[in-house]
Parts: sequence; structure tokens; C-alpha cells
Amino acid sequence: MKKQCEVTFKPIGARITVDEGTGLLDAALSAGVPLKATCGGSGTCGSCKVWLIEGMLESKQTALINSTDFKNGLRLCCQSRVTGNVTVELLSSKAEDLQKPGEKTDNRLHHQLLATGWHFQPMAQKSALKLKPPDINDNQNDLKRLRSALGQKGFKDVIIDYDIVQNLPGFLRSSRWEVSTTVVSGRPAPMLANLEAGDTSQMHTGIAFDIGTTAIRGQLLDLNTGYILAEATAYNSQGSYGEDVISRIAYCRRAGGLVRLQKAVTDTLNSLITTMVKQAKINKQSISHLVVAGNTVMTQLLFGVDPEPLRLSPYVPAFDTPPQMPAASLGINVPRHVYIYAIPGVASYVGGDIVSGITGCGIYQREEISLYIDIGTNGEIVAGNKDWLVTAACSAGPTFEGGGIKFGMLAAQGATEDFTLDPETGEPALTVIGGVKLAGICGSGIINTVCALFQAGILGPNGKFNRESNCPRIREGEDGYEYVMVYGAKAQNGENIVISEMDIDNFIRSKAAIFAGCQTLIDSVGIGLEDIESIVIAGTFGLSINIESAIKVGLLPDVAREKFMFIGNGSLLGARLTSFSQEIYHDGLKVAEMMTNLELSENGAFMDNYIASLFLPHTDSKKFPSAGVGA
Amino acid sequence: MKKQCEVTFKPIGARITVDEGTGLLDAALSAGVPLKATCGGSGTCGSCKVWLIEGMLESKQTALINSTDFKNGLRLCCQSRVTGNVTVELLSSKAEDLQKPGEKTDNRLHHQLLATGWHFQPMAQKSALKLKPPDINDNQNDLKRLRSALGQKGFKDVIIDYDIVQNLPGFLRSSRWEVSTTVVSGRPAPMLANLEAGDTSQMHTGIAFDIGTTAIRGQLLDLNTGYILAEATAYNSQGSYGEDVISRIAYCRRAGGLVRLQKAVTDTLNSLITTMVKQAKINKQSISHLVVAGNTVMTQLLFGVDPEPLRLSPYVPAFDTPPQMPAASLGINVPRHVYIYAIPGVASYVGGDIVSGITGCGIYQREEISLYIDIGTNGEIVAGNKDWLVTAACSAGPTFEGGGIKFGMLAAQGATEDFTLDPETGEPALTVIGGVKLAGICGSGIINTVCALFQAGILGPNGKFNRESNCPRIREGEDGYEYVMVYGAKAQNGENIVISEMDIDNFIRSKAAIFAGCQTLIDSVGIGLEDIESIVIAGTFGLSINIESAIKVGLLPDVAREKFMFIGNGSLLGARLTSFSQEIYHDGLKVAEMMTNLELSENGAFMDNYIASLFLPHTDSKKFPSAGVGA
Repeated sequence: MKKQCEVTFKPIGARITVDEGTGLLDAALSAGVPLKATCGGSGTCGSCKVWLIEGMLESKQTALINSTDFKNGLRLCCQSRVTGNVTVELLSSKAEDLQKPGEKTDNRLHHQLLATGWHFQPMAQKSALKLKPPDINDNQNDLKRLRSALGQKGFKDVIIDYDIVQNLPGFLRSSRWEVSTTVVSGRPAPMLANLEAGDTSQMHTGIAFDIGTTAIRGQLLDLNTGYILAEATAYNSQGSYGEDVISRIAYCRRAGGLVRLQKAVTDTLNSLITTMVKQAKINKQSISHLVVAGNTVMTQLLFGVDPEPLRLSPYVPAFDTPPQMPAASLGINVPRHVYIYAIPGVASYVGGDIVSGITGCGIYQREEISLYIDIGTNGEIVAGNKDWLVTAACSAGPTFEGGGIKFGMLAAQGATEDFTLDPETGEPALTVIGGVKLAGICGSGIINTVCALFQAGILGPNGKFNRESNCPRIREGEDGYEYVMVYGAKAQNGENIVISEMDIDNFIRSKAAIFAGCQTLIDSVGIGLEDIESIVIAGTFGLSINIESAIKVGLLPDVAREKFMFIGNGSLLGARLTSFSQEIYHDGLKVAEMMTNLELSENGAFMDNYIASLFLPHTDSKKFPSAGVGA
Repeated sequence: MKKQCEVTFKPIGARITVDEGTGLLDAALSAGVPLKATCGGSGTCGSCKVWLIEGMLESKQTALINSTDFKNGLRLCCQSRVTGNVTVELLSSKAEDLQKPGEKTDNRLHHQLLATGWHFQPMAQKSALKLKPPDINDNQNDLKRLRSALGQKGFKDVIIDYDIVQNLPGFLRSSRWEVSTTVVSGRPAPMLANLEAGDTSQMHTGIAFDIGTTAIRGQLLDLNTGYILAEATAYNSQGSYGEDVISRIAYCRRAGGLVRLQKAVTDTLNSLITTMVKQAKINKQSISHLVVAGNTVMTQLLFGVDPEPLRLSPYVPAFDTPPQMPAASLGINVPRHVYIYAIPGVASYVGGDIVSGITGCGIYQREEISLYIDIGTNGEIVAGNKDWLVTAACSAGPTFEGGGIKFGMLAAQGATEDFTLDPETGEPALTVIGGVKLAGICGSGIINTVCALFQAGILGPNGKFNRESNCPRIREGEDGYEYVMVYGAKAQNGENIVISEMDIDNFIRSKAAIFAGCQTLIDSVGIGLEDIESIVIAGTFGLSINIESAIKVGLLPDVAREKFMFIGNGSLLGARLTSFSQEIYHDGLKVAEMMTNLELSENGAFMDNYIASLFLPHTDSKKFPSAGVGA
């Protein structure tokens, strides 16, 4: 028997095991990798170029690849044979237009921090079927004929709804028995979501959404190649009905409140969809599937389900995952055939967003213990490994996304990126995203600002400005004492931009909730910080966080810096991988089942830890050896 | 180990195996038989009386049962022990009001001609659930809580639709966690069709329909007890768009034709539902499920599916069984929660009605070979046993249901039941259903009439009246020669009632199609009439058929009379048993898979047999030794 070699195709994650000596082009085609070989594999067209990332290939160098590129690993699939386990990366013909997964959002992503072992086999699969037209010797019924053809593609016991069955005779005949099917994975069986005439299998996209309380982020995905075709972010329009989940739940008690909140979130989704469809220049009909991840309140509001029991003891969600259904029924502007899948949640304050993040970053697959911190409006913390997962949630408030801060904003052009100051004069040095005039302070900006003010002694450990400081930028404003970050001339709207004690109070409450949550969760399972081998920081905001600042203000634990890792928006990452892989979809269900929720809202230890954390960096300074003033 | 005894409870068909010596009341309760024992089993209330039908019981005679009744087999369950296999029949407290299954339609039914071995476990099952209210130590989500409770009742992986999930939090809380569920069997998984507040499990009825081309018959069923609560029959309103399936298919080619035909059949169903609901004095909300059986064209029209491909070679149906769906979506006036199940068909002219009949009468369970003949507008014939089933269909026309006959009518009050005549004078002696004046001729009436006229020599073997006969009742009418059955004074509407040569031509074509179908089917599998151990006659019409007449006119084969058996409306019988039993439901799917269809419409042998049968009784008189004139 020949040696078996595993071949992995990045970025789509396709993987196949082949005999030693198999041609790489054959391996790619068998794995379903959408590679073109226009010349038929003769080595003359160059359309099957890949980069050798890891492992060995036996390859010929042809005139189409110069020596430098060949040394750097550029190969033609058709001129290469597999000689051992190997990983290659595809070059898309549209490589310039397309963004590879993670290229933008995950720029600090450690590659080992992704779930592994999955195959690129989207939850929604599109297939072109040529049915054999019936004749007098084979006149089985239309539905059975369609089912047989689906069966041959590996789709068994598919749920086929009346909408499709009703029009089947006319549809199959007018399509001349050549149709494309979209089958969506689901429980207890996959569903036939769409039946189209002809071969439309190349038009196959999906959208992954992270539905945050404050912001919503979407990615338009090519479900044939695994490329991200477009990305977009917007504030959740529900914001006008309340900044946090509690106020939104309260709003639902008004007549028509739930309907308005559902409409607000679908309005935002619709505008993001329009933006991304335009950006990627695709036809909306090509959208095959939606995957959303959100906290439990966001998910229930999107599905129009009364969230009232979520805020009252015993804090009971309506569902783990709602039934898959046409997204259009919820008011989302996509074709009727597009089913929406919501990643399952665990508890009232541990939603699909956190399950999505844990699934996406693969903590549930590893031996080592990780601590996962998703810093958003709702702070969510998970500790565990492949055998156990415990989770807790604490209301951090919208501070880290720019909410609850007078000049707060999302991390976009015009936001402070870095902030230092001259300890003598108290004069600041700012860098602003996009190099423009300052418009406001984003989450990472506020950490850096508070840290710098605190380190310089201008701000006390209680979050109050030092009244004796002679810094001319400290003054009494309408919200109490404040520090002027820039004067009007340097601000985008000509107004002084300040950070006030009220802003800082909000920030301290937010960071205290996160830190106290970590502390309580770790204590509850009887381990210490030293047992944790990696701390995964999720949240788009985490990508731009300055670890030193975050530790020195007492937001993150004071441990070896190399333990910190960043995955950006974990919820969106998990939603994307769930779109891409049925194995990840099933893993998500498993992760939700595995998670034990520690309810902090009625937990005495958490309250103690929280109060102890309402200081810069903490009442117990031994916990933060690196954080002395001026350190 | 104790001896095992099988106990069967009639009429509901419940069956259980218990240890020898088990109390009969315990056995009944374990088998889910809805028996009351008001006194708690002390033998004093008499509410658990049953009749001993077969087998042995060890019973005490108490004061509640007199000696005569005890000798005849009346027993108290609570005073009886099982000592061997035994069959008992329940007495309902409502016995006077209720009709037992088969009492009316199946009055000539041989009991061995029912499917056996099934349990009373309806496709739709209603359960009262008391959910444990959530608390802080058990705050799993509402959907999971409902699923767990369903799981405890044996319902796993139930499909729960968005309509139910969306309102779950409010519904469960306002119901104080006490609800009733209706779960309907289905592929690939059972569905939660309805969720009601409180315990409504006693309100649980279903409707079985046989949707014939000419007439529709319904039965309202108590799904807790197996009793038939009401029955009703009406002409299919589609009749005004064409008498047979071919003309209805043709009508669908007109703009709006399909919609009108769908509305016509649902109009008829709706009026039957109204009639039965009134008759039984039930609340429409108690309806849990519909089961329909019809030929393929009727089923497609009911589901609004274009039947055009059914009439053109290669004769392809749209589906075997359409997806279960809310009947209300088809325009049927039942609550939204009522799902409709259509028994699967096999081919264009072998529909769910025939599968239903074969399933209901149990031919597919037996070693012996049976021939099944369903005499309706579409004549359907099946031969086979537990190992094989072949089937064929031939268009018999509406003759046997009174169509295509000038004075034809369904077998109802005023129709000729029997007809004889004085061979000397040609004067008739009629008996009329209900003993009233004659209104018309039903299917069995026309067979008797044609037979009597033929036997008397008034009608020739070619179906023409003997022009030389001096019978004063023969005359030339507007449709050619005719025989006056009654003169106006004895007719309900005061008009002469006649049977014309045109009527007789239609009849001969109908009977020729049936006989030729049987002949061709038997020949095709290489067996002879002598290999067939029973001939099952289905069709309501079959119940009143005179076997001698039917053989002498050449409709049925001339074999030993004891081979003939009658099941009445087989389609309705199968639909009712399918309502009652998930095993029968699964058997129906199996029967549809087993059946091989012999397409007669392009079959040369059939055409030859048909032409040879266009005589009274047949061109080959050796086939009908009993049928000589005057025999």
C-alpha cells in the first residue's frame, strides 16, 4: 500500500488524503478546490499556481515561474506531485480584488488560534443536477427523481417543502431537467432551500453577521472559494431605544416595542447587506445562506421573541437555537430561499456570540486551558479546554465601543489610536486613525488615555483628577472635572474634545466588571491564573488594544505578555467558519451543550471582586505588580 | 419465566403482551385503552365491562352481570385475569351514540380482510404535559424544557416550527407550564403541530377522506378511542368541470383552471367537515389531523399541483406523497394546526386510494395471492401477496357511481337496489332503497338491470335491445332505443325512468375495462385465475353488488363464489387505519414502494382483452360458463 499524504488547501481549508505520488492538480480537483487548469494540465497556462506553505512537493520549474518565485514556494499544481503531508495556498485569479479570510480583521491573529480539522463544506451547498428525463420505462415521479439526484450528491432525507413541490412538474420541465439545488444543513434533517433552473452553482454566496448590542458586523462570503468578498460595520439601530440589553428588554414592555426593535435590527442588517452586495458587485439572488451570532437578547429580538424572561430571575432564554427559517420572514431583505441560522446560546447572558467565538478559535479542541475574554457591551468570559468549558457574563456597558463616553466612537477614521503625554506638562501626543483631525475616542483610545493620565499622576486611583495638578488641560466642565484632549482647532467639528470624570467612572465600572468576572470564574473552578496557558482576547476592539495599558488600568490580568492572543471579532469569526463548514456547525452545537454557565448576577463573590476592582488598577495592588504609577 | 399472553382490545385494535395471571384491567391500562374504573377496580361500578370474543379469561361473576350475559361473555376487566391469548371488545359508555368502526360501511366485511398486527397509536398524538417551572438551579431555555417533556413522552427530535417557538416564552408562562401537544408522525421526523394551554388531550379527533373522482367520503374519528363519530358523503364538486380525470386535467390548461378545481374539491371537503362536526357535536378545535386517500389526479388537484404530465406519456406524477402541511394552506376550513397527510401513490393511474385499500385490507401481509379490484370511476386492480404486488389501472368511467347513465345516481334513497323481470312479459319487479318511489339507478342497480334484460333475451350480447321483442317497455327514445323501468306515476319526479342503449354502451365499456384489466394483469405475472385464493372487491358500490349478476354480465371473473370478499370503500378504510396507527402509516409507505405498475394505456394485450370484453358477457363465452342466457 502506498503512503498516504494529507494535502491542505488554504485559505479555504479543503483537505484530502491521497496516495504518495498523486498529482497535486488531481488532488485539488478531488478535494473540490475550484482551480482552473485552462491548458488541461500541460503546464502552459499558469492558472493552477499555488504557494507551498509547509511540507514537500516534487515539482518541475517551468518558464511560467521565475527562480525567485520558485525559491519562495510558487508552484504549478499540474507540475507537482505529492510526496508527503503538504499545505499550499491558492492564488485566486481575482486575488487583487479579493480579501483572504482574516486578512483585515485578524491582522494579529495567531494561526494556531483557529479551530482545526474541519473541511470546507458550507452549511449551504449548491449543486448543479442533470436529471435523466423520464421515459415510459422510467416514469418515477418528479419528487422521487429529484430526491434520487440529490441522493447521488450525498444529500439523503432532505426536507422538501410544499413551496417547491407544488411547482415541481412545470419547473423541472421548463428547466429541461437541469436544475441547481441549495441544500442547507439543519436538524433533524437538511432542507432543500432553493431550486433554480440551469446551472447557477457558481453564484453561491453567504453572509455571516455578528449582531452586537452596539455594532453589527457583516462579511459577504464566497461559498465556493471561502473568500471574503466584502465587509461592513454599522451601529445597531436599536441603539436609539436603549444603549444596553436591559433597557432594550424594558422597551419591549411598551406596546409595539418588540416589533420596533426587531425592525431596527433588520434595518441595520438590510443596509449592511446593500453595502456589501454593492461592494462585491454580486447579484443578490446569489445569496444562499445567512449565519448570525449574537448575544441571547440580540438573537431573540431579531427573531421577534419576547425577551422579558431574560432579565428576571431565573433568567430563562426562549431557545438555544431557533429553527432555521427564511430570513425574509423576519424582515431581512434577501430572496425568499435564504435560510437564516443563529448560532446557539447557553443562557440569558451567554449567547451565540460567545459560543461562536469559542467554536471559531478552537479552545474546545485543545488539551491546554485557555481563558477567553470577549470585551464588548456585554463582557463574556470562558475558561476551559476540550473536556470542560465554564462561562460567565457581566455587563461591561458600551464603553469599549465608544458608548457612555461623551466623545466616544467606534474605532474608525478620526478616533484616537494612541495617546501618550508629557509627565511634566501634561501635554498630550495623539495619533489619530487615518491621520486626520480628532473626532472622538475609541475603546482602545480610552484605555491608553486613562492609563497615561494615571501613570502621569494626573488621574488618581479612584478615577478622579488630581485637583492639585497644575496641568492647564484639567478644568471643570459640565460633567464635572475633565481633561481636554484637543482644543477645537484640532478637532473635526471645531469643538474641544474632552474626557470627563464621568467618562472615566463609566470606564472603571466596565473594566472592573471584566476583571472581576475573570477572577470569579477562575476561582469558581479552583484553578489559578498560572494554570492558564493562553488568554484569548476577542472583540474587534481587542485587536487595537495596547496590552500594557490594559494591564496597567486593571482591565486584564498581569501575567506574562506572551500568553495574550487576539482573534478580533470572535463572534464573526465563528459565524464565518460555521458558514464554511458543517463540522464547525456541529461543533458549535456541541460547544453550547458543553458550556456550564456561572450566573454572576446573583453571585456574592463576583460583587466582592467587582467592588475591589473599582480602582486603578485594583484595591489589591499586589495583583498588578507592573502597574505602579510611572511604571 | 411466566407464559406470555397476547390480549387484544376491539374495536380499537390495541394489543399488549402480558404475563399469565395479569389482571385484565392492568393489561388494558398498560395498553393505553381508555377504560374507566370509577370504583378503583373493586368490581362495584361496572364501568370496565367488556365482551369476551375469543380465548379464555379467569373471571369472577359479580352482581353487576347476570347469568345470561355472563354466559354470552360479558366480563368485568377488574374481576378477570389473563390465562392465555384473548380478545375482548370494549363497551363504550357512549355505545348507543357511537358507531363502531366498519359498522355501517363494512357490513359484509370479512374480518380476516383487515390488516393485522398493528397497535392503536394514531399518526397524530395528543399529550398533556406538565413542565417543571424553571428556577435559578434549572434555568434551561423554554424550547429545551418543552423538548425534554416531549422526550419523556417518547417524542424525540420533533420538528418545532417558528410559529410555535416565537410565542413560546409568553405561552408557557400564561399556561402556567401546563400544555397539550399534538405531535404528528412524518418523514424525516415527527412535527409538533399544535401547542395548547392546559389539558386538552381529551379533545382529539381526526378526519379520514376518500377523495374519489365522482364522490368524496369522510369519516370523523375519535383519535382517543378509535370510534367513528360521524360519516358523510357528497359528490365531488369538481364534477361540474368534467366527469373523469382526463377532462379535469384538460380543464387545468385553461387560465385559472387549476385554482378552480382545487377550490371545488376543498369546497366539498369543507361542506363534509361542517356536516360531520355538526353530526358529532364536536368542537372544530378538537380536530388534530387529516388523512386523505385519492387517485393521483385527485391528490395533485387537492394540493394545487399541475396534473398535465399525468395524462401524457410517460405519465409522470409530481410526487408519491406530498409534504405534510397545514390543511388550511390548501383552503380547507380547519384550524391552522391541522396537518394533512396524503397516502402515497405509485403512478399516474395508481394513486393513494389503491395503496390505501391494499394497506387497509392487509393483502401485503399474507402468503396467499389475492386479486384486489376497486371498482370506481378509475378501475384499479392489484394482484399479489406479502412478497410482490403488481397493479394496473383502467378508466372504467363513472358508470358504477351513476355517472354516464341518464338516470344514474349514487346508492342512496330512491335508487334501484334489485331488479328482476318476468321473462314472459318483460315486466320488472324493483326494490328501491328506502322503499320510496324510484329516483334513479345506482351502480349495483344497473348491473342487475342489464343482467336481467340480458338473461331474459330482451337485450342482446352486443348491448342492443332485441328489436323483435314484443316487450311494450322497449321504445325509441331521444338517446336511441330504451327500456322504461318505471312510468312517471311511480317515479319521484313524475318522469319516466328509462335505461337506454347509450347507457348500456357506457356500462359495457366500463365492465369491459375492468375485466380486461384483471385478465391482462394476471397474464402479465404468469399466473392463472386458479392461483388466486381471494378476490377482494373494494368500492362502496361493491358492497351492494350482486355477484351473480356481476359475473353474468362479464364484469367479474366466473370463479367459485366463496372466493369473493368485500371491504367496501378500501381507500377510506386504509385512510382510517392510517389515522389510527403509525405502523399502518409506515406500511402504506412500504406498500407504495413494493407496487410494480403495469401501464395499460400503451399495452397491446390490454387493448385486445378490452375489445374481446365489449360483449355480454364476453366474446369468448367459455370464460363465463355460468352466464348463458336464462342461466
